[in-house]
Amino acid sequence: MRQAGRSLPEYRALRAKGSILDAISSPEIAAELTMQPVRRYGVDAAILFSDIVVPLVAIGVDIEILPGRGPVLAAPFRHDDDLSRLRPIEPEVDLAHVLDTITILASELDVPLIGFAGAPFTLASYLVEGGSSRTFGLTKSLMHSEPATWHALVDRLAAICLASLRAQVKAGASAIQLFDSWAGTLSPSDYAEFALPASTFILEGLADLHVPRIHFGVGTGELLGLMARAGADVVGVDWRVPLPLAAARVGPDVALQGNLDPAVCLAPTRVVREAAGKVMNEAAGLSGHIFNLGHGVLPETDPDTLKAVVDLVHATSAARDTE
Amino acid sequence: MRQAGRSLPEYRALRAKGSILDAISSPEIAAELTMQPVRRYGVDAAILFSDIVVPLVAIGVDIEILPGRGPVLAAPFRHDDDLSRLRPIEPEVDLAHVLDTITILASELDVPLIGFAGAPFTLASYLVEGGSSRTFGLTKSLMHSEPATWHALVDRLAAICLASLRAQVKAGASAIQLFDSWAGTLSPSDYAEFALPASTFILEGLADLHVPRIHFGVGTGELLGLMARAGADVVGVDWRVPLPLAAARVGPDVALQGNLDPAVCLAPTRVVREAAGKVMNEAAGLSGHIFNLGHGVLPETDPDTLKAVVDLVHATSAARDTE
Repeated sequence: MRQAGRSLPEYRALRAKGSILDAISSPEIAAELTMQPVRRYGVDAAILFSDIVVPLVAIGVDIEILPGRGPVLAAPFRHDDDLSRLRPIEPEVDLAHVLDTITILASELDVPLIGFAGAPFTLASYLVEGGSSRTFGLTKSLMHSEPATWHALVDRLAAICLASLRAQVKAGASAIQLFDSWAGTLSPSDYAEFALPASTFILEGLADLHVPRIHFGVGTGELLGLMARAGADVVGVDWRVPLPLAAARVGPDVALQGNLDPAVCLAPTRVVREAAGKVMNEAAGLSGHIFNLGHGVLPETDPDTLKAVVDLVHATSAARDTE
Repeated sequence: MRQAGRSLPEYRALRAKGSILDAISSPEIAAELTMQPVRRYGVDAAILFSDIVVPLVAIGVDIEILPGRGPVLAAPFRHDDDLSRLRPIEPEVDLAHVLDTITILASELDVPLIGFAGAPFTLASYLVEGGSSRTFGLTKSLMHSEPATWHALVDRLAAICLASLRAQVKAGASAIQLFDSWAGTLSPSDYAEFALPASTFILEGLADLHVPRIHFGVGTGELLGLMARAGADVVGVDWRVPLPLAAARVGPDVALQGNLDPAVCLAPTRVVREAAGKVMNEAAGLSGHIFNLGHGVLPETDPDTLKAVVDLVHATSAARDTE
């Protein structure tokens, strides 16, 4: 349950003191923020407290993360000569703080740690738009009108992401998740041409490390098959696609992660338990399934509701295992 | 091409003088704003200049439309007793200004006029959230936790929309479009339970008028079959779903409308023409297709680009008709 911390009072207390990038750059704080939801909810894995723009900040791209707005660039990427702002990353130096956080977590956690990176398309959209976007008009315009510049941009981002993920695994992450949060804005043909190759480079480039690779997006119903073929062991699916339909799209060798609607988690607990039970029922016939929300936890979610969901999932799984 | 006016200098000149609701309430201005894109682009139909909240404003619901924010309610609907704020509509009285606009247009236009209404789910989401939303958390919470209140709400909205649409057709609209702009946030099972019945009531309730009924949404890939079965003659589809796949989902008796990505229309004209040509190629094998964007025109779109798209579509269609 990504971003589960935001709904916790202990998270808000610890985060009150500075920006999210400050918290990420302090290994002790970032490790504590990673462990809080594991302690509170008893989930089966931890996801590193970090942000997809961290590797870009680490190599000197001028990005701030503003509350309620997300990543913001004073000088967006628009031209060929902006590419030089993306130098190759040296994870042991540039991401030393992240790797230190993972080292702490590897010794403290008794569940697997999931490392992560943003996929090149989603990262590029922030760089080109200068922040979040509803339409991705500048991004789409660049990819269609200057495809060579676009491919050079996502190729540089892919190299940065792959280096970051390999370093995270070597430092102790047991699995990785590639977040292509906004890929769902693309048509299948645009995704195949402008996003898939760079993501494939990353996922295939991790194959020799033999860790599970989760490929995540939202609103990606028509892209699930392509996202699986990028080299994923698990594909994230949101609540818009019923799990059996998603399973048919990713094929028999790829597991699914999802797909409870995080907005439904604002309803009373009995309603949320019923919705979570429905996800578990739909998943019962699948060859591989990781229960999760279809997107990040909303900050206004009641922690007791999430705890009830986790308990229900554990009880349902345990009952099935003893059948 | 819905909202095509926003990209036109003549639109901005005429709209500069007041709010959008002021413009809609003046039949002469609303008729002129309806005709501007028809004159400029030579499209094959006009869509009434109006807004989905107009019938609600007309019966006294306190809604403003703020630039860049859309509809905003000072007092959102949250409880059973808010239902009384939705009295039945008397179109000839409450929507007299809209019907006067249509009367003007019926005599001035030499292309068909499309009337429209917002679908109950999308209207209800504005009422419950108090404005636009990214997550629809309050809406989903209400529908799941207080289903009787939810159904009473959408049933009242359905009666208002049906009365508005019937009056629009009687005044001279040749087709209607039901906008369920945000239905794509729902899972298929939630859509079937909480949105489809009220939309079906509207579309079936128009059957005796024998006008084409277009059912529109965005991000509705998994809902296309249900949206067709609501009683639509045409279903709108966005760029996320290739047209042949969408055709399979709606079935052989329902036509498609779409699906050029409006964000791609910000690219240079040669790129946009190529993308429009691809839509026409995908549509070539379909039994029924209305070329359109997959969503409204973005305000920053170059009018010359849209003109080039219209010309390309006309030339392609004409070439096919003579084959």
